[in-house]
Order: sequence, then C-alpha cells, then structure tokens
Amino acid sequence: MITVYGYSPSGNCHKLRVLLTQLKRPFTWIEIDSAHGATRTAEYLAKNPNGKVPMIDVDGRIMTESNAILYWLAEGTPYFQGDSWERAQTMAWMFFEQYSHEPYVAVARFICGWTPLDSPRRADLPKLRERGYQALGVMEKHLAQNAWFSGKNYGIADIALYAYTHCADDGGFDLSRFPSLVQWLARVRATPDFVDMPRYADENIALIAQSK
Amino acid sequence: MITVYGYSPSGNCHKLRVLLTQLKRPFTWIEIDSAHGATRTAEYLAKNPNGKVPMIDVDGRIMTESNAILYWLAEGTPYFQGDSWERAQTMAWMFFEQYSHEPYVAVARFICGWTPLDSPRRADLPKLRERGYQALGVMEKHLAQNAWFSGKNYGIADIALYAYTHCADDGGFDLSRFPSLVQWLARVRATPDFVDMPRYADENIALIAQSK
Repeated sequence: MITVYGYSPSGNCHKLRVLLTQLKRPFTWIEIDSAHGATRTAEYLAKNPNGKVPMIDVDGRIMTESNAILYWLAEGTPYFQGDSWERAQTMAWMFFEQYSHEPYVAVARFICGWTPLDSPRRADLPKLRERGYQALGVMEKHLAQNAWFSGKNYGIADIALYAYTHCADDGGFDLSRFPSLVQWLARVRATPDFVDMPRYADENIALIAQSK
Repeated sequence: MITVYGYSPSGNCHKLRVLLTQLKRPFTWIEIDSAHGATRTAEYLAKNPNGKVPMIDVDGRIMTESNAILYWLAEGTPYFQGDSWERAQTMAWMFFEQYSHEPYVAVARFICGWTPLDSPRRADLPKLRERGYQALGVMEKHLAQNAWFSGKNYGIADIALYAYTHCADDGGFDLSRFPSLVQWLARVRATPDFVDMPRYADENIALIAQSK
C-alpha cells in the first residue's frame, strides 16, 4: 500500500497524484502543510531528514524526491518507455526540471502566493523570473520539434515538467510567449485519467491576485 | 565514440571522467571553459540550449545533465545495481544532489574560487553555507548506517555526491564535522580505477586561499 505525504498545492507533490491516478494504483494521501512547518517536526524529520515533501511510505519503507518516485512508479509501464538512450533523455529532462526550472518557476510562484506582500523575498522575483523564462524558452525550443519530453510518448518527464509550468502564471510568468508550450500543456491535460491540481486555499489565491 | 564537453574543475563534469574511466570506456574530452562564457556561444547553444556543461556527443547525438548521463552510462553495469526500489533510491540521492546539495556546496565553492574578491555574490556565502551544511548533515546521517548511496555497493549516486563534497572545503565547509562522510570520501577514492579531479588553474587556487 502506498501512502503519499504531500501538500496539495505543491507541484512536486501533484506529480505523484497524477501518475498514481493514471496508473490506477490505489494510494492514501496525507496532507502535510509544508508552508506552515509540517515538514520540520521531529516526527517528519525522523522519516525524511531532508524535511521536504513529497515522501511516500510503501509498507514501512520511505522514498523521497518526487522525480525518483515517478521513476520507481513508472518503470515497466507505458509512462517510461524507449531504449536506454531515450529513457536517459527522459531522465535528463527530469534533472533539468529540478535544477533549471523548479528553483525559479516554482519559487517565484511560492513567493507570490505563500509569502506576505511585504516579504523581503519579493526582491528576488525579477531574477527568478529571468531564469524561469530561460527554462521556459528551453522547453519551447524542444516542443517546437517534439510532442513530448518523455521520448515518443507522454510520460514521467511530461508529468514532472507540467507540475510547475501549468501554474507558472501564479508566479508572474506570461506563458502566451510560448505557443508550443501552451499546446503541450493542453495535450498533457487531455491524457487519459489526468487529474487537475486541487484548488488552493483562499489565502493563497488572494495573495497571487494581489501580486499581479 | 563518446565526446565529453566539460570544464575540468567542474564537479558535474568530473562525474563523467570518473565513471568513464572506471568503466574503461574510451572517450575524448573537449575542454569548455564555462567560467569564461564558452557555454554561451551560438555554436554551443545550438547543441545545448540550456548552455551548461557537461554535454556528451555520441555519434552526433547530444545528451546533457550529468546525472542523466551517469544513468545512461551505468545501466546494466555494476555501477547501477539492485532491484527497482534500490535503483530508485539511487536516483533519489542523485536528485537530492542536484536540488539540495549542488546549488549550495558547489555554488559556494564557485564564488570563492571563480569570482573576484570584491564580487557582490560573496554576500550570498553565509546562506549558501547554512544550506550546504544541511545537505552534508543529511549525507552524514545516511552514512552513519550505510556504506554507500547507491544501494549495497559503490555506484553512480556515490560518484554524483562525491563530485562536490570532496572539494567542499574550497567553499569554506569544514568536513571534519562529518566523520562518516570523511570515511566515505576515502572509500570512494579507493575504488578501482578512481581518478582525481585535475589540478585547478593557479588563479582559482589563489582565490580559494584568499577566501579563507
């Protein structure tokens, strides 16, 4: 049995909800409010010393890192296909997501929706947006010639990159600059059994609106 | 035939030199001075729009992202072993390396050795060191009970984490606080055909010394 410890508005956590649903694998979701310190309790840190979500518990064994969990879930399924070169290219996009995309696109969104309007972190937004736009530009270039990030078919690199790209607007990114990317987002949403991110709390929706 | 485009003092690039040497796979190394803009030329960006090293060219096909390249090289070899859970745990450590370790431990080292003594980026060092020490602490906790990061044996997660941990001192980290980690570094160095990072340029060695 798989238990996911996750914060629903987190793109990293939502990746697991998408793949588990598409794989039709039953799971229990335990909501962990990482924005309010729930990953920093002694109980949580005993399971995951790195203090982050998501984390899964599979019959008492713990795994962390959203993209490693996607890899574990997808091995041997249609969501991780191709020869060894193609599978490694899928992994390359997942490392790109964690290194060159998430620290900018996701963090800008977090600052806009999850920090007070007078937070000193808001001074970081211009730099985060510059780097985030670079990452979105790299995606656009790929999508101008390819339908997916996971080889010939939709798969785990698409799930990983969709996670924070689909809500990049929350962080002040204008996705209309990237037409191929906008079409890809729609293709991802149209895959069988795709599931949307749950609605955020009113507080976060209000902060995002006030940040624009 | 494998051609590596890499900057020798880069830990991310050195990962490939280590694994290719240990696998006894012939390769050509093309030195790319990423610290002086060589990844931002039109020619380089045409091959890798993300403008980073390392990159490999295998018979005209390009792959980027150091840890994805390690995965591609290691599949089916003793450097990526175990059942699907263990292999995914190896991947989890590689994602940890890129998300929670490299952006702090490697970036602190870069600032100390590759930016002028009056660089405004040096103001970031205290925060980078705080986060870097957190990552080293997570590694120490694992190593207190496990010999390796790649399942039961030495493998690609060890190569990935060694890359910037072994030279963390360059960035002002005191590794003597982490006894299990120091022993693990020695175990990595003692693996068959292990190869050290080449000596840095005098300029960088001098900057590191003056940063202490």
